Formats: sequence, C-alpha cells, structure tokens
Amino acid sequence: MVALEYAYGRCLADNQLEDWPEFFVEDCLYRVLPRENYNLDMPLSIMMCDSRGMLEDRVRSLREANIYNIHYPLHQISNIEIVGESDGTLEVRANYSVFQTDQEGNSVVYSVGRYRDKVVFPNGEPRFKEKTVVLDSFNVPNLLAVPL
Amino acid sequence: MVALEYAYGRCLADNQLEDWPEFFVEDCLYRVLPRENYNLDMPLSIMMCDSRGMLEDRVRSLREANIYNIHYPLHQISNIEIVGESDGTLEVRANYSVFQTDQEGNSVVYSVGRYRDKVVFPNGEPRFKEKTVVLDSFNVPNLLAVPL
Amino acid sequence: MVALEYAYGRCLADNQLEDWPEFFVEDCLYRVLPRENYNLDMPLSIMMCDSRGMLEDRVRSLREANIYNIHYPLHQISNIEIVGESDGTLEVRANYSVFQTDQEGNSVVYSVGRYRDKVVFPNGEPRFKEKTVVLDSFNVPNLLAVPL
Repeated sequence: MVALEYAYGRCLADNQLEDWPEFFVEDCLYRVLPRENYNLDMPLSIMMCDSRGMLEDRVRSLREANIYNIHYPLHQISNIEIVGESDGTLEVRANYSVFQTDQEGNSVVYSVGRYRDKVVFPNGEPRFKEKTVVLDSFNVPNLLAVPL
Repeated sequence: MVALEYAYGRCLADNQLEDWPEFFVEDCLYRVLPRENYNLDMPLSIMMCDSRGMLEDRVRSLREANIYNIHYPLHQISNIEIVGESDGTLEVRANYSVFQTDQEGNSVVYSVGRYRDKVVFPNGEPRFKEKTVVLDSFNVPNLLAVPL
Repeated sequence: MVALEYAYGRCLADNQLEDWPEFFVEDCLYRVLPRENYNLDMPLSIMMCDSRGMLEDRVRSLREANIYNIHYPLHQISNIEIVGESDGTLEVRANYSVFQTDQEGNSVVYSVGRYRDKVVFPNGEPRFKEKTVVLDSFNVPNLLAVPL
C-alpha cells in the first residue's frame, strides 16, 4: 500500500501525468470533493472520473487544451493506514499535503486533505479501484488543474 | 508504534475527541510545552494532564464549555523512530505538522513540533504512558483548544 | 533506509551538526541544487561538498564564522522509496519539507524538495555515498546556512 501511494505521489510530482491512469483499474472511481460534502454524503465533486478512459481524457485535456499557470507540486503522503478489508479489496487511508512552487521558486501549502482509497490486486499488483480525495482546503488558491 | 501514532492522529483529525483518552493508560502524563522549556528541563507546560481522568475532563470541557473558532486540523506524522527501550517501555519519537483549515477552506500551518513518547503494552496493546508534545511553533495563532 | 533518513533529519533538527558528516562515507558527494538545474543536468549547485572533510569544514564554519539569524528547523521526511540497486549501492528517493521557526515561535514552510540519495553499507551500516537535495523552493527566504 505504502509503495502504491508513494509511486502515485511521485508520478504526479514528477509531472508524468501520462502514467497517472495506470494506477487505476479500468472500472474505477476518482473524485475530489470537500470534506463537508463527503461527511454529509453529498456526492457533489470538484472533479470526478468514473473510468480509466475518463482519466486519460483528463490528461489529454491538461496537456493539450487547458491553460493554467505552471506550478510544481510536491506530495507529502503520510499516515498511511489499512483500515479495512473485504473480498480482496483493501480500504486504505492516508493524509497528504501538497506544496506548490511557482516559477520564482516560492513554495506554499497548496492543498491538504485525506485519501480514502479502495485498492484491488489484478494480476497481483495493487491498483486503485477507488480514490476519493477529501479536501480540507477546499478554497484552492488556483484552479485545480493537475490531479491530487 | 507507527499504527498507534497514526490512529492517534486520525482520532484528532476526525474530531473523535471522546476516543482520545483511550490512547493513554490510566496513570499517564500528557503535556504540551515549548521546545525552549523542554530543552532547559523547565516543567512549565501550556497544557498538562497527569491522569486519564484529566484527559476525559478536558474533552468534556472542550465539548461543553469552551468557546473557540471552529477549525479542522490535519496531522501529518512522520519520522517515527523507536529510540530506546527499558523494562517494556518504548521510547518513541516523531515529528508532526498540523495544518488547520478554517470554515472558508483556507489551510495554514498551525503547529509543527515533535512527539516524545513512552509507550507501554497493557494486554498486549500499545498505549501512551507519556506523551510530550514539544512545540517548535509555540506562538500558536489561535488558542490551543484541541489537543495536538 | 527509513532509519537512516530519519536519523539524518533528527541530527539536523536537533542541531547536532557535528554528527552530520558521519552520515556520509569519506569519499562522498553532498549537493543542493534547484530542480531546474537538476532536470537539465546542469551541475551548478547552491552548496557542494565532495568529501567528508569538506562537510566537516562546513560545520566548523557554521559554528565559528558564519553569522546568521537563529532559526529552528524541523524535517518532515516522507515518501521514502528504494528505486534502484546496483553493486551494493541503493538508490533512494524521498520528499522533505523543512519548517523553520524563529525566536518568536512562528513557523513557516522554509524549503520543500526531494532527496536523491545513493546509499552504501561499509561495515554493514548504511551511509550516504551521495545525497543530492533537489530544491522545489529555490528562492530560500533566508540564506541557506544549515544543511538540508
């Protein structure tokens, strides 16, 4: 689990977005939502993809269409815990803080929050069946462009 | 140890304060003090409880009496090390950073510091005999309401 | 690896600079450089020492000659991964965030970045053959005095 989470963070921090969908199984759910919505079981998300194809579309869109300020993210992922297991699916939690550095080299706390993940093992390799990013800081200072 | 520290952080970040005293043995010491005092062996603490009953009182007081701004904490606990052992008591160190998010969704670094813990194993389960929170940032931006 | 990285961070956060060179083998490389330079394979460093003797000189200079504001650092080291191995040398990566607290007790994010390390095992003990600190935040708010 730890290896999966760290490799995931490295992929994003190294700007290898093309590899990002491969951390998920085909039939997956990726979503980003404020903690308030999550706790009230309101499904309204800031970002939501419910298949690997949608994740791939998102990457293409980021690479080719979107215009946004260039910032460099760094993911500190800690407090990784396995909190449940059923039918070969692990329920994993972690906390993250993402620092963002602009082109002048100034770093700020960009987003802090929690991962609520479901992990499965197709071909023995861990992959995300579901990754829910629960934002503590939902007032994101810039448009949420690259994934968390 | 890692599991104990992470569960502790999760309890506080999830606002399950009623469970907080259960991370400690009955006859325990919990205190929060600035690094300067700690290094000079001056016992003056910002917060101090020397039994589980006092921890329970503190939770009741937080829930029922205290008035404070609502903020959401997130604990990043890292650098967890076992640095000593004697008579079945483990000496554990860790670093923490607690981010705090206000109701508008803005996150700031609230407190960074170190845990200096003594861990014992009643009934085979790890519990804090002592937890000393040594604050690097002793100039806390808001009243120290919820525990660190 | 994890133990080595944490002990390294503890040494610096506890201001035990005299022990810092002992984390390295005699014939070593320690350097700090901005990510941009690192990614372009440009060797220009902000700090560079290519032997343990140079590390020792640096500590002496910090203790005896340099004048700088007193700040207390705290190292959060996470995402520690072994990403390669050859001829008994491990290639290790980690992310760090260093918070700095001034004498009034205010903490700020001082530096975030990555460690790119090569670790060897003289006498069975892990030591850094190479430690490259790749800065995300290269616009350091204060002179880079103490090592990262």
